[in-house]
Amino acid sequence: MTDSANFNFALWQLLLRTLSIMKKAREIELNELGTSSRNSAVLSTIMRLGEEATLSNIAEQLVLEVNTISTQLSRMEKDGLIEKSKDPKRKNLMTVRITDKGYESFIRAMKRNKTNAIMSALTEKEKHNLWTTIAKIRKKSMAELGKDSTILYPPSDPADLPPPSQQEGTIESIRLHRTRSSTP
Amino acid sequence: MTDSANFNFALWQLLLRTLSIMKKAREIELNELGTSSRNSAVLSTIMRLGEEATLSNIAEQLVLEVNTISTQLSRMEKDGLIEKSKDPKRKNLMTVRITDKGYESFIRAMKRNKTNAIMSALTEKEKHNLWTTIAKIRKKSMAELGKDSTILYPPSDPADLPPPSQQEGTIESIRLHRTRSSTP
Repeated sequence: MTDSANFNFALWQLLLRTLSIMKKAREIELNELGTSSRNSAVLSTIMRLGEEATLSNIAEQLVLEVNTISTQLSRMEKDGLIEKSKDPKRKNLMTVRITDKGYESFIRAMKRNKTNAIMSALTEKEKHNLWTTIAKIRKKSMAELGKDSTILYPPSDPADLPPPSQQEGTIESIRLHRTRSSTP
Repeated sequence: MTDSANFNFALWQLLLRTLSIMKKAREIELNELGTSSRNSAVLSTIMRLGEEATLSNIAEQLVLEVNTISTQLSRMEKDGLIEKSKDPKRKNLMTVRITDKGYESFIRAMKRNKTNAIMSALTEKEKHNLWTTIAKIRKKSMAELGKDSTILYPPSDPADLPPPSQQEGTIESIRLHRTRSSTP
Protein backbone atom coordinates (compact mmCIF):
# COMPACT_ATOMS: atom_id res chain seq x y z
CA MET A 1 0.00 0.00 0.00
CA THR A 2 1.37 3.43 -0.86
CA ASP A 3 1.86 6.24 1.63
CA SER A 4 -0.85 8.14 -0.19
CA ALA A 5 -3.36 5.31 0.28
CA ASN A 6 -2.39 5.11 3.96
CA PHE A 7 -2.86 8.87 4.30
CA ASN A 8 -6.26 8.67 2.60
CA PHE A 9 -7.32 5.95 4.98
CA ALA A 10 -6.09 7.78 8.09
CA LEU A 11 -7.98 10.91 6.95
CA TRP A 12 -11.07 8.76 6.36
CA GLN A 13 -10.77 7.39 9.90
CA LEU A 14 -10.32 10.88 11.33
CA LEU A 15 -13.44 12.08 9.51
CA LEU A 16 -15.67 9.19 10.47
CA ARG A 17 -14.58 9.12 14.08
CA THR A 18 -14.83 12.89 14.50
CA LEU A 19 -18.28 13.02 12.98
CA SER A 20 -19.41 10.26 15.32
CA ILE A 21 -18.02 12.26 18.29
CA MET A 22 -19.88 15.41 17.09
CA LYS A 23 -23.05 13.37 16.76
CA LYS A 24 -22.64 12.02 20.26
CA ALA A 25 -22.21 15.51 21.76
CA ARG A 26 -25.36 16.69 19.97
CA GLU A 27 -27.33 13.54 20.78
CA ILE A 28 -26.79 14.11 24.51
CA GLU A 29 -28.17 17.65 24.12
CA LEU A 30 -31.16 16.46 22.03
CA ASN A 31 -31.97 13.66 24.46
CA GLU A 32 -32.09 16.19 27.27
CA LEU A 33 -34.55 18.17 25.11
CA GLY A 34 -36.68 15.02 24.70
CA THR A 35 -35.85 14.30 21.06
CA SER A 36 -33.16 12.73 18.84
CA SER A 37 -31.07 13.73 15.83
CA ARG A 38 -33.02 11.30 13.66
CA ASN A 39 -36.37 12.85 14.67
CA SER A 40 -35.00 16.35 14.09
CA ALA A 41 -33.62 15.51 10.66
CA VAL A 42 -36.92 13.94 9.56
CA LEU A 43 -38.99 16.88 10.86
CA SER A 44 -36.80 19.51 9.21
CA THR A 45 -36.81 17.57 5.93
CA ILE A 46 -40.63 17.30 6.01
CA MET A 47 -40.88 21.07 6.50
CA ARG A 48 -38.52 21.80 3.62
CA LEU A 49 -40.28 19.36 1.28
CA GLY A 50 -43.73 20.76 2.13
CA GLU A 51 -46.37 19.14 -0.10
CA GLU A 52 -43.68 16.87 -1.55
CA ALA A 53 -43.05 15.24 1.84
CA THR A 54 -43.71 11.66 0.76
CA LEU A 55 -42.06 8.57 2.20
CA SER A 56 -39.78 8.13 -0.81
CA ASN A 57 -38.79 11.81 -1.01
CA ILE A 58 -37.85 11.90 2.67
CA ALA A 59 -35.81 8.71 2.27
CA GLU A 60 -34.10 10.11 -0.82
CA GLN A 61 -33.21 13.39 0.87
CA LEU A 62 -31.75 11.68 3.93
CA VAL A 63 -30.08 8.99 1.77
CA LEU A 64 -31.72 6.28 3.86
CA GLU A 65 -33.66 3.19 2.81
CA VAL A 66 -37.43 3.57 2.42
CA ASN A 67 -37.86 0.81 5.03
CA THR A 68 -35.73 2.68 7.55
CA ILE A 69 -37.74 5.89 7.09
CA SER A 70 -41.01 3.95 7.14
CA THR A 71 -40.16 2.47 10.56
CA GLN A 72 -39.02 5.87 11.80
CA LEU A 73 -42.23 7.59 10.60
CA SER A 74 -44.40 4.93 12.25
CA ARG A 75 -42.62 5.53 15.54
CA MET A 76 -42.98 9.30 15.16
CA GLU A 77 -46.68 8.88 14.34
CA LYS A 78 -47.13 6.78 17.46
CA ASP A 79 -45.37 9.52 19.45
CA GLY A 80 -47.83 12.03 17.99
CA LEU A 81 -45.21 14.08 16.13
CA ILE A 82 -46.57 13.53 12.62
CA GLU A 83 -49.67 12.31 10.81
CA LYS A 84 -49.66 10.31 7.62
CA SER A 85 -52.35 10.92 5.04
CA LYS A 86 -53.16 9.77 1.53
CA ASP A 87 -52.54 12.49 -1.04
CA PRO A 88 -56.05 13.44 -2.29
CA LYS A 89 -54.74 14.02 -5.85
CA ARG A 90 -52.41 11.01 -6.04
CA LYS A 91 -54.17 8.23 -4.13
CA ASN A 92 -51.21 5.84 -4.16
CA LEU A 93 -48.97 8.42 -2.44
CA MET A 94 -48.71 8.90 1.28
CA THR A 95 -47.76 12.36 2.46
CA VAL A 96 -46.71 13.36 5.94
CA ARG A 97 -47.74 16.36 7.99
CA ILE A 98 -46.37 17.62 11.26
CA THR A 99 -48.68 17.88 14.27
CA ASP A 100 -48.62 20.71 16.81
CA LYS A 101 -46.72 18.38 19.13
CA GLY A 102 -44.21 17.79 16.31
CA TYR A 103 -43.62 21.53 15.80
CA GLU A 104 -43.21 22.02 19.54
CA SER A 105 -40.72 19.17 19.76
CA PHE A 106 -38.76 20.66 16.88
CA ILE A 107 -38.75 24.14 18.41
CA ARG A 108 -37.36 22.67 21.64
CA ALA A 109 -34.55 21.07 19.61
CA MET A 110 -33.57 24.51 18.30
CA LYS A 111 -31.52 25.01 21.44
CA ARG A 112 -28.18 24.44 19.74
CA ASN A 113 -25.57 25.05 22.37
CA LYS A 114 -23.44 22.08 21.35
CA THR A 115 -23.54 22.64 17.59
CA ASN A 116 -22.77 26.35 18.02
CA ALA A 117 -20.00 25.73 20.53
CA ILE A 118 -18.36 23.14 18.29
CA MET A 119 -18.62 25.09 15.03
CA SER A 120 -17.30 28.21 16.73
CA ALA A 121 -13.94 26.46 17.05
CA LEU A 122 -13.47 27.38 13.37
CA THR A 123 -12.82 30.73 11.69
CA GLU A 124 -15.23 31.94 8.96
CA LYS A 125 -12.65 31.07 6.30
CA GLU A 126 -12.19 27.56 7.71
CA LYS A 127 -15.96 27.07 7.73
CA HIS A 128 -16.29 28.10 4.09
CA ASN A 129 -13.38 25.89 3.01
CA LEU A 130 -14.78 22.98 5.03
CA TRP A 131 -18.19 23.42 3.38
CA THR A 132 -16.67 23.25 -0.12
CA THR A 133 -14.48 20.27 0.71
CA ILE A 134 -17.25 18.28 2.39
CA ALA A 135 -19.58 19.04 -0.54
CA LYS A 136 -16.97 17.49 -2.88
CA ILE A 137 -16.84 14.39 -0.68
CA ARG A 138 -20.63 14.21 -0.62
CA LYS A 139 -20.81 14.49 -4.42
CA LYS A 140 -18.26 11.72 -4.90
CA SER A 141 -19.92 9.49 -2.27
CA MET A 142 -23.29 9.91 -3.98
CA ALA A 143 -21.66 8.98 -7.30
CA GLU A 144 -20.22 5.84 -5.65
CA LEU A 145 -23.76 4.99 -4.50
CA GLY A 146 -25.02 5.52 -8.06
CA LYS A 147 -27.13 8.47 -6.93
CA ASP A 148 -25.42 11.28 -8.85
CA SER A 149 -28.64 12.94 -9.87
CA THR A 150 -30.13 13.50 -6.40
CA ILE A 151 -30.05 17.16 -5.38
CA LEU A 152 -29.48 17.32 -1.66
CA TYR A 153 -29.76 19.94 1.03
CA PRO A 154 -27.67 21.83 2.15
CA PRO A 155 -26.46 23.07 -1.27
CA SER A 156 -22.89 22.28 -2.40
CA ASP A 157 -21.98 25.96 -2.61
CA PRO A 158 -22.62 27.90 0.62
CA ALA A 159 -23.49 30.93 -1.56
CA ASP A 160 -26.53 28.96 -2.73
CA LEU A 161 -27.93 28.60 0.79
CA PRO A 162 -31.53 29.83 0.42
CA PRO A 163 -33.09 32.55 2.61
CA PRO A 164 -33.87 31.46 6.21
CA SER A 165 -37.52 30.62 5.43
CA GLN A 166 -36.31 27.95 2.99
CA GLN A 167 -33.46 26.60 5.08
CA GLU A 168 -33.93 23.56 7.26
CA GLY A 169 -34.43 24.03 10.95
CA THR A 170 -34.77 27.82 11.11
CA ILE A 171 -37.55 29.54 13.04
CA GLU A 172 -38.60 31.25 9.76
CA SER A 173 -39.02 27.89 8.00
CA ILE A 174 -41.17 26.58 10.86
CA ARG A 175 -43.42 29.66 10.77
CA LEU A 176 -43.83 29.43 7.01
CA HIS A 177 -44.58 25.70 7.06
CA ARG A 178 -46.98 25.95 9.95
CA THR A 179 -48.94 28.77 8.27
CA ARG A 180 -49.18 26.86 5.00
CA SER A 181 -50.24 23.62 6.70
CA SER A 182 -53.06 25.29 8.59
CA THR A 183 -54.48 26.80 5.36
CA PRO A 184 -57.25 24.51 4.09
CA MET B 1 -31.38 33.43 15.31
CA THR B 2 -28.52 35.18 13.53
CA ASP B 3 -27.34 34.37 10.00
CA SER B 4 -24.13 33.10 11.52
CA ALA B 5 -25.99 30.61 13.74
CA ASN B 6 -28.03 29.50 10.71
CA PHE B 7 -24.84 29.05 8.69
CA ASN B 8 -23.26 27.03 11.52
CA PHE B 9 -26.29 24.80 11.65
CA ALA B 10 -26.43 24.27 7.87
CA LEU B 11 -22.72 23.35 7.89
CA TRP B 12 -23.37 20.99 10.78
CA GLN B 13 -26.17 19.33 8.77
CA LEU B 14 -23.92 19.06 5.71
CA LEU B 15 -21.21 17.41 7.82
CA LEU B 16 -23.45 14.89 9.55
CA ARG B 17 -25.41 13.94 6.44
CA THR B 18 -22.23 13.56 4.40
CA LEU B 19 -20.83 11.32 7.11
CA SER B 20 -23.82 9.06 6.87
CA ILE B 21 -23.50 8.92 3.05
CA MET B 22 -19.75 8.12 3.22
CA LYS B 23 -20.43 5.47 5.82
CA LYS B 24 -23.14 3.94 3.68
CA ALA B 25 -20.85 3.72 0.61
CA ARG B 26 -18.15 2.03 2.68
CA GLU B 27 -20.61 -0.25 4.53
CA ILE B 28 -21.82 -1.71 1.22
CA GLU B 29 -18.21 -2.50 0.30
CA LEU B 30 -17.45 -4.00 3.72
CA ASN B 31 -20.62 -6.11 3.74
CA GLU B 32 -19.58 -7.57 0.39
CA LEU B 33 -16.25 -8.43 2.03
CA GLY B 34 -18.11 -10.15 4.88
CA THR B 35 -17.46 -7.57 7.59
CA SER B 36 -18.68 -4.19 8.89
CA SER B 37 -17.19 -0.79 9.67
CA ARG B 38 -17.73 -1.37 13.39
CA ASN B 39 -15.82 -4.67 13.29
CA SER B 40 -12.99 -3.07 11.30
CA ALA B 41 -12.67 -0.13 13.67
CA VAL B 42 -12.55 -2.42 16.71
CA LEU B 43 -9.98 -4.76 15.14
CA SER B 44 -7.66 -1.94 14.05
CA THR B 45 -7.94 -0.30 17.48
CA ILE B 46 -7.07 -3.60 19.20
CA MET B 47 -3.97 -3.93 17.01
CA ARG B 48 -2.81 -0.41 17.73
CA LEU B 49 -3.40 -0.76 21.48
CA GLY B 50 -1.53 -4.09 21.62
CA GLU B 51 -1.20 -5.22 25.25
CA GLU B 52 -3.31 -2.27 26.33
CA ALA B 53 -6.34 -3.56 24.40
CA THR B 54 -8.75 -3.67 27.33
CA LEU B 55 -12.49 -3.13 27.14
CA SER B 56 -12.27 0.36 28.61
CA ASN B 57 -9.33 1.44 26.44
CA ILE B 58 -11.08 0.32 23.26
CA ALA B 59 -14.26 2.16 24.31
CA GLU B 60 -12.23 5.27 25.16
CA GLN B 61 -10.40 5.25 21.83
CA LEU B 62 -13.59 4.85 19.81
CA VAL B 63 -15.48 7.31 22.08
CA LEU B 64 -18.22 4.74 22.63
CA GLU B 65 -19.85 3.52 25.81
CA VAL B 66 -18.23 0.53 27.55
CA ASN B 67 -21.59 -1.30 27.23
CA THR B 68 -21.67 -0.75 23.47
CA ILE B 69 -18.15 -2.10 23.03
CA SER B 70 -18.85 -4.98 25.41
CA THR B 71 -21.83 -6.10 23.29
CA GLN B 72 -19.77 -5.67 20.12
CA LEU B 73 -16.85 -7.70 21.51
CA SER B 74 -19.18 -10.52 22.62
CA ARG B 75 -20.59 -10.72 19.10
CA MET B 76 -17.10 -10.69 17.60
CA GLU B 77 -16.01 -13.42 20.02
CA LYS B 78 -19.01 -15.52 19.00
CA ASP B 79 -18.01 -14.97 15.35
CA GLY B 80 -14.51 -16.22 16.20
CA LEU B 81 -12.76 -12.93 15.38
CA ILE B 82 -11.34 -12.24 18.84
CA GLU B 83 -10.69 -13.97 22.15
CA LYS B 84 -11.07 -12.38 25.55
CA SER B 85 -8.66 -13.28 28.29
CA LYS B 86 -7.91 -12.19 31.85
CA ASP B 87 -4.71 -10.20 32.07
CA PRO B 88 -2.31 -12.50 34.06
CA LYS B 89 -0.71 -9.50 35.80
CA ARG B 90 -3.90 -7.53 36.44
CA LYS B 91 -6.58 -10.12 37.26
CA ASN B 92 -9.47 -7.67 37.22
CA LEU B 93 -8.65 -6.59 33.65
CA MET B 94 -9.88 -8.32 30.54
CA THR B 95 -7.68 -7.99 27.46
CA VAL B 96 -8.61 -8.89 23.93
CA ARG B 97 -6.60 -10.73 21.31
CA ILE B 98 -7.32 -11.22 17.64
CA THR B 99 -7.71 -14.76 16.29
CA ASP B 100 -6.37 -15.95 12.90
CA LYS B 101 -9.90 -15.61 11.59
CA GLY B 102 -9.97 -12.03 12.89
CA TYR B 103 -6.74 -11.13 11.09
CA GLU B 104 -8.02 -12.71 7.88
CA SER B 105 -11.28 -10.81 8.12
CA PHE B 106 -9.38 -7.58 8.64
CA ILE B 107 -7.05 -8.24 5.71
CA ARG B 108 -10.08 -8.78 3.48
CA ALA B 109 -11.46 -5.40 4.62
CA MET B 110 -8.25 -3.75 3.38
CA LYS B 111 -9.76 -3.61 -0.08
CA ARG B 112 -10.53 0.09 0.05
CA ASN B 113 -11.91 0.97 -3.33
CA LYS B 114 -14.66 3.18 -1.92
CA THR B 115 -12.58 5.07 0.62
CA ASN B 116 -9.82 5.66 -1.96
CA ALA B 117 -12.26 6.70 -4.66
CA ILE B 118 -14.01 9.14 -2.34
CA MET B 119 -10.87 10.69 -0.85
CA SER B 120 -9.33 11.06 -4.30
CA ALA B 121 -12.00 13.68 -5.06
CA LEU B 122 -9.77 16.04 -3.06
CA THR B 123 -6.42 17.62 -3.89
CA GLU B 124 -3.47 17.06 -1.52
CA LYS B 125 -3.84 20.60 -0.23
CA GLU B 126 -7.56 20.11 0.42
CA LYS B 127 -6.81 16.87 2.28
CA HIS B 128 -4.26 18.56 4.55
CA ASN B 129 -6.57 21.50 5.25
CA LEU B 130 -9.46 19.13 5.92
CA TRP B 131 -7.34 17.14 8.36
CA THR B 132 -6.42 20.26 10.36
CA THR B 133 -9.99 21.58 10.38
CA ILE B 134 -11.53 18.26 11.39
CA ALA B 135 -8.94 17.85 14.14
CA LYS B 136 -10.04 21.23 15.55
CA ILE B 137 -13.66 20.08 15.52
CA ARG B 138 -12.70 16.81 17.20
CA LYS B 139 -10.80 18.65 19.93
CA LYS B 140 -13.75 20.96 20.62
CA SER B 141 -16.26 18.09 20.53
CA MET B 142 -14.18 16.10 23.01
CA ALA B 143 -14.06 19.18 25.28
CA GLU B 144 -17.87 19.43 25.06
CA LEU B 145 -18.05 15.77 26.13
CA GLY B 146 -15.71 16.53 29.06
CA LYS B 147 -13.04 14.27 27.59
CA ASP B 148 -10.32 16.84 26.83
CA SER B 149 -7.51 14.67 28.09
CA THR B 150 -8.07 11.63 25.86
CA ILE B 151 -5.42 11.31 23.17
CA LEU B 152 -7.02 9.88 20.07
CA TYR B 153 -5.85 8.34 16.84
CA PRO B 154 -5.32 9.63 14.12
CA PRO B 155 -3.15 12.48 15.50
CA SER B 156 -4.40 16.07 15.23
CA ASP B 157 -1.44 17.10 13.05
CA PRO B 158 -1.00 14.94 9.93
CA ALA B 159 2.78 15.45 10.32
CA ASP B 160 2.51 13.38 13.52
CA LEU B 161 1.10 10.34 11.71
CA PRO B 162 3.37 7.49 12.91
CA PRO B 163 5.20 5.12 10.53
CA PRO B 164 2.95 2.55 8.78
CA SER B 165 3.64 -0.18 11.37
CA GLN B 166 2.06 2.03 14.05
CA GLN B 167 -0.82 3.31 11.97
CA GLU B 168 -4.22 1.68 12.16
CA GLY B 169 -5.25 -0.67 9.41
CA THR B 170 -1.98 -0.90 7.47
CA ILE B 171 -0.53 -4.21 6.34
CA GLU B 172 2.65 -3.35 8.31
CA SER B 173 0.67 -2.90 11.55
CA ILE B 174 -1.03 -6.27 11.06
CA ARG B 175 2.31 -8.05 10.49
CA LEU B 176 3.84 -6.41 13.56
CA HIS B 177 0.86 -7.21 15.77
CA ARG B 178 0.56 -10.78 14.56
CA THR B 179 4.26 -11.47 15.19
CA ARG B 180 4.06 -10.01 18.68
CA SER B 181 0.90 -11.91 19.57
CA SER B 182 2.36 -15.26 18.55
CA THR B 183 5.45 -14.69 20.73
CA PRO B 184 4.89 -16.50 24.06
